[in-house]
Amino acid sequence: MYSTTVRDHMMIAHSLRGETFGPAQRLHGATFVVDATFRRRELDDDGVVVDIGRAAQVLGEVLAGLSYRNLDDEPALAGLNTTTEVLARHVADALAARVSAGALGEGARNLAGIAVTLHESHIASAGYELTLEPTGRAGGEGEE
Amino acid sequence: MYSTTVRDHMMIAHSLRGETFGPAQRLHGATFVVDATFRRRELDDDGVVVDIGRAAQVLGEVLAGLSYRNLDDEPALAGLNTTTEVLARHVADALAARVSAGALGEGARNLAGIAVTLHESHIASAGYELTLEPTGRAGGEGEE
Amino acid sequence: MYSTTVRDHMMIAHSLRGETFGPAQRLHGATFVVDATFRRRELDDDGVVVDIGRAAQVLGEVLAGLSYRNLDDEPALAGLNTTTEVLARHVADALAARVSAGALGEGARNLAGIAVTLHESHIASAGYELTLEPTGRAGGEGEE
Amino acid sequence: MYSTTVRDHMMIAHSLRGETFGPAQRLHGATFVVDATFRRRELDDDGVVVDIGRAAQVLGEVLAGLSYRNLDDEPALAGLNTTTEVLARHVADALAARVSAGALGEGARNLAGIAVTLHESHIASAGYELTLEPTGRAGGEGEE
Amino acid sequence: MYSTTVRDHMMIAHSLRGETFGPAQRLHGATFVVDATFRRRELDDDGVVVDIGRAAQVLGEVLAGLSYRNLDDEPALAGLNTTTEVLARHVADALAARVSAGALGEGARNLAGIAVTLHESHIASAGYELTLEPTGRAGGEGEE
Amino acid sequence: MYSTTVRDHMMIAHSLRGETFGPAQRLHGATFVVDATFRRRELDDDGVVVDIGRAAQVLGEVLAGLSYRNLDDEPALAGLNTTTEVLARHVADALAARVSAGALGEGARNLAGIAVTLHESHIASAGYELTLEPTGRAGGEGEE
Repeated sequence: MYSTTVRDHMMIAHSLRGETFGPAQRLHGATFVVDATFRRRELDDDGVVVDIGRAAQVLGEVLAGLSYRNLDDEPALAGLNTTTEVLARHVADALAARVSAGALGEGARNLAGIAVTLHESHIASAGYELTLEPTGRAGGEGEE
Repeated sequence: MYSTTVRDHMMIAHSLRGETFGPAQRLHGATFVVDATFRRRELDDDGVVVDIGRAAQVLGEVLAGLSYRNLDDEPALAGLNTTTEVLARHVADALAARVSAGALGEGARNLAGIAVTLHESHIASAGYELTLEPTGRAGGEGEE
Repeated sequence: MYSTTVRDHMMIAHSLRGETFGPAQRLHGATFVVDATFRRRELDDDGVVVDIGRAAQVLGEVLAGLSYRNLDDEPALAGLNTTTEVLARHVADALAARVSAGALGEGARNLAGIAVTLHESHIASAGYELTLEPTGRAGGEGEE
Repeated sequence: MYSTTVRDHMMIAHSLRGETFGPAQRLHGATFVVDATFRRRELDDDGVVVDIGRAAQVLGEVLAGLSYRNLDDEPALAGLNTTTEVLARHVADALAARVSAGALGEGARNLAGIAVTLHESHIASAGYELTLEPTGRAGGEGEE
Repeated sequence: MYSTTVRDHMMIAHSLRGETFGPAQRLHGATFVVDATFRRRELDDDGVVVDIGRAAQVLGEVLAGLSYRNLDDEPALAGLNTTTEVLARHVADALAARVSAGALGEGARNLAGIAVTLHESHIASAGYELTLEPTGRAGGEGEE
Repeated sequence: MYSTTVRDHMMIAHSLRGETFGPAQRLHGATFVVDATFRRRELDDDGVVVDIGRAAQVLGEVLAGLSYRNLDDEPALAGLNTTTEVLARHVADALAARVSAGALGEGARNLAGIAVTLHESHIASAGYELTLEPTGRAGGEGEE
């Protein structure tokens, strides 16, 4: 299995709901350094998993939709507790949707999976990994 | 699959048995920067894999039982060659036991697995990964 | 010259005032990974610049006063544009005040300087460095 | 599953073929910081996945065959588009061949897999992962 | 003293002249991860050393003039042995020239100095640091 | 001012004397990831601060004299409390002595200074910096 990873970041404000979060229930914020990994069983004709330039651009676009914002006020995230895990899935799903829409080219529809890790500090991170069917759609229960 | 990772460290002395270890057969020591990753297929009601504060606390407790010690003299490790791999498993098993005992809450009993990586320098690390059964007990031969 | 550095972090929300900040004028947030460096010409009788445990504790206390907060609402920062540079100085000054008050012990009053760096992402950081007079008070114009 | 990872690097010149590479079609170069991970289900009698000293040596030998070279002129890579993904596989296959030849000892023939990651900058990396049959030969279609 | 640092990178091919360079006399290449630090005694009216967005843009422009190139063929570097040290100075001088030309705004003409570090691998880096006169011109012999 | 930095590491056992060290008074150990920086006002005829290969070799030799040892039993360190700060100076002084003896070549006798940083974990480090007289000898009280 091959993989390609690109890194970018976003800076957001939010608050978390639930006693378990202690002081993080207050409005605060985070820098998330985001690693997006694209997996594929065989390389395309250029010898790559995805065009790394396009991958970086697509990741940047997804993060631009969240960055420099108070996530508590974002309609797209309404009703979600925006934990690092939830945001990792949000980013992974958004990347999968763009792959499915062809934003990474036709070849990228053969991706086997996408993994997203959000580093919230030097001592904590969270991630979400999804498998993709040959057509580039996110797998249902088959996700590992 | 979701994951949450917390980082901590321990500083220990030990010696390794076997000619393959060369100068590391002498009493020496190491800082192990430890990444503990908890995996889970679905998030709990708070939207997390585990309460990250509890996870950090439990990892700290496990490492406190080893840190600032000469592992050659630790009864809990008697008979073990305390290589980085062996210590990674020791930490992973200790975390799994605490999960099973409820130290990370009832929800954590649904964890799918735990992975532990010990970074012994900027150029070397070792790890151990175990799968957990739905009840939170470490899998037998089913471990991957 | 000797130095000792400890690392911790804080997670805050804030907004920045001024057109130069573009989208960062909106309420957003950041994780600041903070390195605090203490400098001294000679070591104390224990052979250290400062007691590293105390240094970590004092840094943690200073950051706890800012973390998990919306800095736009903090009285202690009223009127300040809480840029990374301004926060670096705020942390350095707070550390210097605690040194002067004896929080790091009598020996620490001989510190030559304190430097604080705030890493706001994997590609950006800012810092502030101050010199200390023999009595442990922050230097006036003599700061380098 | 246990794993052991060693890190080394190589510095090469090359050019990439295909319009998708834009300016990287010109002769340029890269430092690849290389992580080689060896996986095994059970430890050997010494309590390790592989002799880490030998592993580092074998990785160094493989990289020495590429480093300080213009890959466009290397007969061993003739006809290949030397993308980061292709080089990751080249390194992984070379490590597997050496494992199969006994360079890491008899025990290493029980390795379950090898993963190689090439970090080409602070924001991009690529990798290749192969499974090994009990005899230490690279798996055919069974590779994951 | 305040400082602000931005990070970017360039990927180049080159060869080094002189027996001391051993195999690096051959055409090879490198990724240089570049940290550019801007220093200033007092912050500007916005509370920053420099507009970090502009600083990142200017650093990117300077590196774009070198990246994805064979430095042996670059007229701007003709006659230079393009060691990491020499390139660090080249980047620092180019940044200073742009500061002097106003690319970072009028306030940046008050910068006290610029430091550039080029990380060529995980185990080696080189840097160059220059002082700036109040007018923003690089100091002569007064550089520290 | 130019600088060149090389990184290596050592793994040692030791105990620290003094109540301030708490549990670190017990025999334990550490990995020190060591950065050695060489500074010089002008480059040599090859365009470097020092021959980086030689610098790495000399640092490796100095660390080999400490690594895989129990420092409590090392005659060369008898009577010293081997804190991170004390070891940083020990390494810096050993490097300066080798520079003075010509191990880095005649040109290296013009070095302006040497700085050594020992990273003992992901959250703590200590360093020592010395100035060198034109002849390559460590400065007396003039050290900064």
